[in-house]
Amino acid sequence: MPNETVTHTILKANGTLLEWVEDTVVREVPLTIHYNQEEIATLLCSLSQTEELVFGFLLNEGFIRFPEDVYEIRHDPIDHLVWVEGKPCLLQKELMSKRFVSACCGKSRASFCFANDALMVQPLTSTLSIPLQEAYQYVRYLQSHSPLFEATGGVHSGGVGYQGQALQTSYDIGRHNVFDKLSGSAFRAGLNLENHVIFFSGRVSSEILLKVAKMKVPILIARGAPTDLALSQATALNITVVGFAREQRLNIYTCSERISP
Amino acid sequence: MPNETVTHTILKANGTLLEWVEDTVVREVPLTIHYNQEEIATLLCSLSQTEELVFGFLLNEGFIRFPEDVYEIRHDPIDHLVWVEGKPCLLQKELMSKRFVSACCGKSRASFCFANDALMVQPLTSTLSIPLQEAYQYVRYLQSHSPLFEATGGVHSGGVGYQGQALQTSYDIGRHNVFDKLSGSAFRAGLNLENHVIFFSGRVSSEILLKVAKMKVPILIARGAPTDLALSQATALNITVVGFAREQRLNIYTCSERISP
Repeated sequence: MPNETVTHTILKANGTLLEWVEDTVVREVPLTIHYNQEEIATLLCSLSQTEELVFGFLLNEGFIRFPEDVYEIRHDPIDHLVWVEGKPCLLQKELMSKRFVSACCGKSRASFCFANDALMVQPLTSTLSIPLQEAYQYVRYLQSHSPLFEATGGVHSGGVGYQGQALQTSYDIGRHNVFDKLSGSAFRAGLNLENHVIFFSGRVSSEILLKVAKMKVPILIARGAPTDLALSQATALNITVVGFAREQRLNIYTCSERISP
Repeated sequence: MPNETVTHTILKANGTLLEWVEDTVVREVPLTIHYNQEEIATLLCSLSQTEELVFGFLLNEGFIRFPEDVYEIRHDPIDHLVWVEGKPCLLQKELMSKRFVSACCGKSRASFCFANDALMVQPLTSTLSIPLQEAYQYVRYLQSHSPLFEATGGVHSGGVGYQGQALQTSYDIGRHNVFDKLSGSAFRAGLNLENHVIFFSGRVSSEILLKVAKMKVPILIARGAPTDLALSQATALNITVVGFAREQRLNIYTCSERISP
């Protein structure tokens, strides 16, 4: 990760003592994505797995559905620009951040707030069940395999787990980017995630939950706390949410039948 | 904060023991903002200081510049909708997320990535200097005054400090919302923040740094790590960034002359 960090000279205070030291800081770059000549987004992200990030973003936002929908991808790593040529997308760009008022925040409980999301997610039918010890195993893996976090304290990390093994991992300064990178790498590898687990260092808000739903992953194990909106969506979409996960304790918030003692 | 949390029955695991318990979860609501009849954004946020959040968002995104630019604000707290009537805005909505390519990521160091930001921020000229002990005081305040975090673990918090006192505080599930709420409440109170400090529970990315710059606050004290892009901007804008702040230790990354031993 030589390119992913920079060294800064900082003034370190310990009680009343002050001293100049060399410190490692995580890099953050703006990555601008064009789809079929149109500028669609600028993501602020870390410098790893850039193409996976682009694939995952396009997939999660509904621009593409299959690996073959992307004809060509060009990446300028100096100016952090990406041009993707692909299948004309089904969902309009205009929909991207439009709130889906009819299904949201009316008299019934708010669950889906953005139009694209409501079109893209379905309740999961996976019958996957994992032992509690397997959940702890992923937490231990997460804690012991976050070199950029160790070095800089500035990134979130996550991974895809299967039968106790970490198949893929990613990290980024942005919570969402961690999921887009995992999504993009599974997508390019042709990996079906319906019987897999995602483990994650951060908190679970509705945006994170919807990314998990789009990836069709039935179990999310997070180190942080969930929000109520994320839990409503998880219940509606039949996704197991585990929060406050540590090496030997955790909370199961929804669909607890997928975790066995 | 009765309205800001909900109770969920969860399955708590401690080692191999599993038990059902009642747990407190933070609420997350989608708040849709309209400016002069046009839908401009949906923020996912916590249910506190909603009008402050709207004011701060409009201010930080460049829709308004003075309190009198807002003629009327209507809030539907059931469906989480806000309509603001105000002065026709100077910056076009279309600019909101457009990357400012000419000043960004070229041969010189990337500092400003969004067009609006480059138009809205100026290097700060504040000569404020605070003793190291005052910085520790804000950290202690932050740690002891975060009731919603204590209850749910699901929010970020922050405050505006002046001469060792916390003048305003806010909290939210979204990092950015914490700053918009602080900005909005200072704005409505007519408070000039040029000699104030902001303290914050989270990490410092470029988006956070730019909010601090827009609020003209010369010192940011954060519990989390900064990114290199945030530090470049801080140097260019003459803002002091303190990271990894704890009760008796912290790192000063930029403009260290504002912290005296």
